[in-house]
Amino acid sequence: MTPILTVFASSPDRGRGLARDMPVRWALEEAGVAYAVRTVSFAEMREGAHLARQPFGQIPCYEEGDLVLFESGAIVHHIALAHGGLLPDGADARALALAWMFAAVSTIEPPVVERSMAVLFESDRAWHGERLEMLDERVRKRLRDLAVRLGGAEWLDGGFGGGFSAGDLMVVSVLRRLAGSGLLEEFPALAAYVARGEARAPFQRAFAAQRALFEAGGG
Amino acid sequence: MTPILTVFASSPDRGRGLARDMPVRWALEEAGVAYAVRTVSFAEMREGAHLARQPFGQIPCYEEGDLVLFESGAIVHHIALAHGGLLPDGADARALALAWMFAAVSTIEPPVVERSMAVLFESDRAWHGERLEMLDERVRKRLRDLAVRLGGAEWLDGGFGGGFSAGDLMVVSVLRRLAGSGLLEEFPALAAYVARGEARAPFQRAFAAQRALFEAGGG
Repeated sequence: MTPILTVFASSPDRGRGLARDMPVRWALEEAGVAYAVRTVSFAEMREGAHLARQPFGQIPCYEEGDLVLFESGAIVHHIALAHGGLLPDGADARALALAWMFAAVSTIEPPVVERSMAVLFESDRAWHGERLEMLDERVRKRLRDLAVRLGGAEWLDGGFGGGFSAGDLMVVSVLRRLAGSGLLEEFPALAAYVARGEARAPFQRAFAAQRALFEAGGG
Repeated sequence: MTPILTVFASSPDRGRGLARDMPVRWALEEAGVAYAVRTVSFAEMREGAHLARQPFGQIPCYEEGDLVLFESGAIVHHIALAHGGLLPDGADARALALAWMFAAVSTIEPPVVERSMAVLFESDRAWHGERLEMLDERVRKRLRDLAVRLGGAEWLDGGFGGGFSAGDLMVVSVLRRLAGSGLLEEFPALAAYVARGEARAPFQRAFAAQRALFEAGGG
């Protein structure tokens, strides 16, 4: 059956592919799975029908038969398990891929998002400059460690056999949120890693799909 | 083989069981798995031997034979998969349990941690009062939605068959970080949910183990 992905009717990122439906679209394209899209307005995101699917009133949510799933990491993992190609073989290697998926949203993303929120919502506050410096440094700390671990490899933990995994998909998705900050460019190996992810045909198809929706005025 | 868990030599939470080894200890106790502990000082956390195990220089990490795993969510999931009891049966129910694990660290925890960091590191700044109000409200928003979803159930998504899952373990672990803020008490159903988690014998054993290590002066 065709899964249904719920996304912003009008994405606040203005079609830059930074909303959390993007990693799910990307995973579906990597897996070659066609999907349908349901759009929700900001008002609809706080209504019962949506909250029943997504308890925190966010996007995305993912429906496939009786399964109603939320959290982009869990959805990407589900798609990877069901369709293959995005997870290595073997329980240990799979556990490590999941570790990178958790690291993406739990260790790398929080300072990245906190920085974006400060830029969006606190730039008129007296404290903004001082806080932004502190937040930049928190982001750099993560990027520095990530660059060391990536080393000269194409994808994280070449131990998987060198292939692109759901872990890379999630980490690249988070790093893309730094576009425009100048921070990623301080770590050329990471900038190249993100560029490799973005160059993949499934990424390109996913990006085009969310962009087309934004340009159509939110469908 | 006995797994090895790496934890703080001297936990900054002073034995309150709020460090990220706590959910892993709890999962191991739920699964009835004995484990060994390796302690690291703050200096050792930035050294090569630790960074090879934990790329971001954090705790915990988890070693079991050839597997070297990081991120508490991924470690708890690995333990749950390997030993049973913490994950429901069936791919769909397991995907939903993983969604709660991701929600814990990716949706609920970031505002909780941001609030703690503000209290710890910014309480002497001129902006502190104004920011704290904003941060409290971000936490409340998550708690409000979580309380609605939990409803009158004992554990999240009674659809699992009503049992305690790795999702509950992770969500309760995050909510415990609100101790002392007064925010949890605004949502009695959530306070009772956390108390139910803390009352479990495996939680008590895990708590006692980390507490004993702290009281022994960091082993």
